[in-house]
Amino acid sequence: MKRTSESKDAPSQASLDRRGFLRAGASLAGGLVLAGTAGAGEAAAAQESNLPPNVPEWMKTLGASVEAAPYGMPSKYEKDVIRRNVPFLTATTESSVSFTPLQDLDGIITPNGLCFVRDHGGTPTIDPVQHRLMIHGLVDRPMIYTMADVMRFPSESHVYFLECAANGGMDWKGAQMQGVQFSHGMVHCCEWTGVKLSVLMNEVGVAPKAKWLLAEGADAAAMTRSIPIEKALDDALVAWSQNGERLRPENGYPLRLIVPGWQGNVNVKWLRRLKFGEEPWETREETSKYTELMADGKALQFTWAMQAKSVITHPCPEKPMAGKGFCEVSGLAWSGMGKIARVDVSFDGGVTWQGAKLQEPVHTKSLTRFRIPWEWNGETALIQSRATDETGYVQPTITELRAAWGANAIYHKNSIHTWRVNPNGTVDNVQVS
Amino acid sequence: MKRTSESKDAPSQASLDRRGFLRAGASLAGGLVLAGTAGAGEAAAAQESNLPPNVPEWMKTLGASVEAAPYGMPSKYEKDVIRRNVPFLTATTESSVSFTPLQDLDGIITPNGLCFVRDHGGTPTIDPVQHRLMIHGLVDRPMIYTMADVMRFPSESHVYFLECAANGGMDWKGAQMQGVQFSHGMVHCCEWTGVKLSVLMNEVGVAPKAKWLLAEGADAAAMTRSIPIEKALDDALVAWSQNGERLRPENGYPLRLIVPGWQGNVNVKWLRRLKFGEEPWETREETSKYTELMADGKALQFTWAMQAKSVITHPCPEKPMAGKGFCEVSGLAWSGMGKIARVDVSFDGGVTWQGAKLQEPVHTKSLTRFRIPWEWNGETALIQSRATDETGYVQPTITELRAAWGANAIYHKNSIHTWRVNPNGTVDNVQVS
Repeated sequence: MKRTSESKDAPSQASLDRRGFLRAGASLAGGLVLAGTAGAGEAAAAQESNLPPNVPEWMKTLGASVEAAPYGMPSKYEKDVIRRNVPFLTATTESSVSFTPLQDLDGIITPNGLCFVRDHGGTPTIDPVQHRLMIHGLVDRPMIYTMADVMRFPSESHVYFLECAANGGMDWKGAQMQGVQFSHGMVHCCEWTGVKLSVLMNEVGVAPKAKWLLAEGADAAAMTRSIPIEKALDDALVAWSQNGERLRPENGYPLRLIVPGWQGNVNVKWLRRLKFGEEPWETREETSKYTELMADGKALQFTWAMQAKSVITHPCPEKPMAGKGFCEVSGLAWSGMGKIARVDVSFDGGVTWQGAKLQEPVHTKSLTRFRIPWEWNGETALIQSRATDETGYVQPTITELRAAWGANAIYHKNSIHTWRVNPNGTVDNVQVS
Repeated sequence: MKRTSESKDAPSQASLDRRGFLRAGASLAGGLVLAGTAGAGEAAAAQESNLPPNVPEWMKTLGASVEAAPYGMPSKYEKDVIRRNVPFLTATTESSVSFTPLQDLDGIITPNGLCFVRDHGGTPTIDPVQHRLMIHGLVDRPMIYTMADVMRFPSESHVYFLECAANGGMDWKGAQMQGVQFSHGMVHCCEWTGVKLSVLMNEVGVAPKAKWLLAEGADAAAMTRSIPIEKALDDALVAWSQNGERLRPENGYPLRLIVPGWQGNVNVKWLRRLKFGEEPWETREETSKYTELMADGKALQFTWAMQAKSVITHPCPEKPMAGKGFCEVSGLAWSGMGKIARVDVSFDGGVTWQGAKLQEPVHTKSLTRFRIPWEWNGETALIQSRATDETGYVQPTITELRAAWGANAIYHKNSIHTWRVNPNGTVDNVQVS
């Protein structure tokens, strides 16, 4: 059979010109230069004999059974692609955070196993058969729903980002975290499926005088947030699925409120209760936490929407430059106010800007991947990205943000971020005013 | 603090009218009827005392640490949401298949751990540092690339379905598999990231007389397929990422050829070699396998594209009806020729049809979720879906498909599928001509 002879013969018969491969590096359209990163020994052998690589070991033995992984996991060679927490950041690891490894991700979807986690009382283990959603307060027909009840309603699916209000907070405090996982990794993006909250509100008959709702989680912190009724009626989703499958425990299993574009903690996990009322409840998470202490000592409350923001994820401190020449600079942009309209990239610390290509289709209130080719000359460079959303809002500089928010701020740091590319290819997190 | 009193008091103070909940079931706009599926004991207690459910155990103890799952997994309560194989289907479990549990999935994204697997020599464990991609044959500059080389090229991300040509083959042979996992589960849909094959072709300088390429996998079967150069230049992708993270081992780690809309085996996993030539190679997988034996004994070869197809995933044999009244009928449609233009659903075995709502945005060559409300009267019903793609192609009946393909066919069964809903709510796979 011809296939067999191809498979057997090709590796030893094909005449590969190793010097051609290396030469090609300098003659590419668009200036693409590929480093000869094959092992030195292999490269030398190939240059001498013009031989292609040997047939690898894994082609000589039968691989694993399809029964081996009923639920699959990443390759053992990807074991460092994990969520990470910062030990000094929180007093306990239950009320804490672990960060998405943005440096390892492509496209816009965050795989469920890598979605950042921010818990206030640890991740509960909830039996979905026992779980209930109670809807009460200023409603005509108070309800207690089982999961089977909730999942029987008409459903929708949408791709939305979800970002913790504190994402970037360590940088704002001057920590200059050496890695995009820690400087920006409190954000993820999934395809969420659930019933529109407006459907449930119609179902229970919310009273006209109801202006707010309280959402409560079934965790040890009984996480609670007040949400204005306009947003609840607009695009909020009571979701049971992320990226096709049921929610992960640490992301709200079995039920989560998704409030698109609003700070993460409003997207109450393990949702057990919705109460309608006339005033906000002034819960802990909207008084002592998740408010913005201004320079005059007063605090802004209810700063829900995450404004337009972006970051370059390649290169970054964890993924240094491969060498001079071509580099695809790539990153993520998002806005809680709608679609990303454009992303500009600077290679000189904000002096000049070039438009990046956005991955299509651009979804509203979603991570948006941008890419731009760069020919690196090997010298120090300050690379930045700047997002503009469909409302015309432009991601501010840190100076502009400081002027608006003062020096006490912890949350909502969405300023333009700067990586310094050093001549040796390493990448540092630096602040440029 | 107000939040604390809310959290503590609400569960015991809120006055819930259990009879109101049940009454509401019959008075919903749109005829939505929710079954009272709460446990009988709880329901009785609630009716007597008007008390909401107790505070659950998991709110009384601290949950798991954010360090507990650096790479997260589904809840233990979702342990039955897994890929499954069919022991009688193949002689070994290495050259075999495991099926996606479509009955458990929402939206369009298939989580990586649940993507169907079709191996021909088992899943190899490949060290990405040792892996090479060789490009040779009718090219100006033959190349051997490391993974670092490949991943340095400009990248793109696209959502594409991928379907095994044999999906539905058991049904075509009359097995009438009792479950959508086995009747349609050899399909998945991911956001793939990689370099366009056309970029690599430009890089190596493919000769004008080259009309075909051979793609070879680094598995024990050395899986090989011939691909015409027009398709290679169109939208083929050399991919290293699915749904944001690196490919899973059983889906081609570290490198896979994605040939959008074409039968799964052409999307060569563990891609190690691309050879350009003037003629197809007539490999095993395009001669003895993956050809269509017609009624006259001749075989059709190179039947690459997967034509428009659809299936209802809820209800289905694994997910029976919850009761009379409202049911959201939902399913998936896809076409290897472009975008799904419309999906019609029949509740009477194809006598009458109604247009279903398509989940937006509809991607080209992607799974497309459709949904349609149904008021079930409790009688036997034959429910079907029928996809139409943007080329105007309409998913055929089994009679039309048989007329075109004869009785020997194994592959490319894309006919309209019928579920019979029985009065007791169970769902059977039946064939309607």
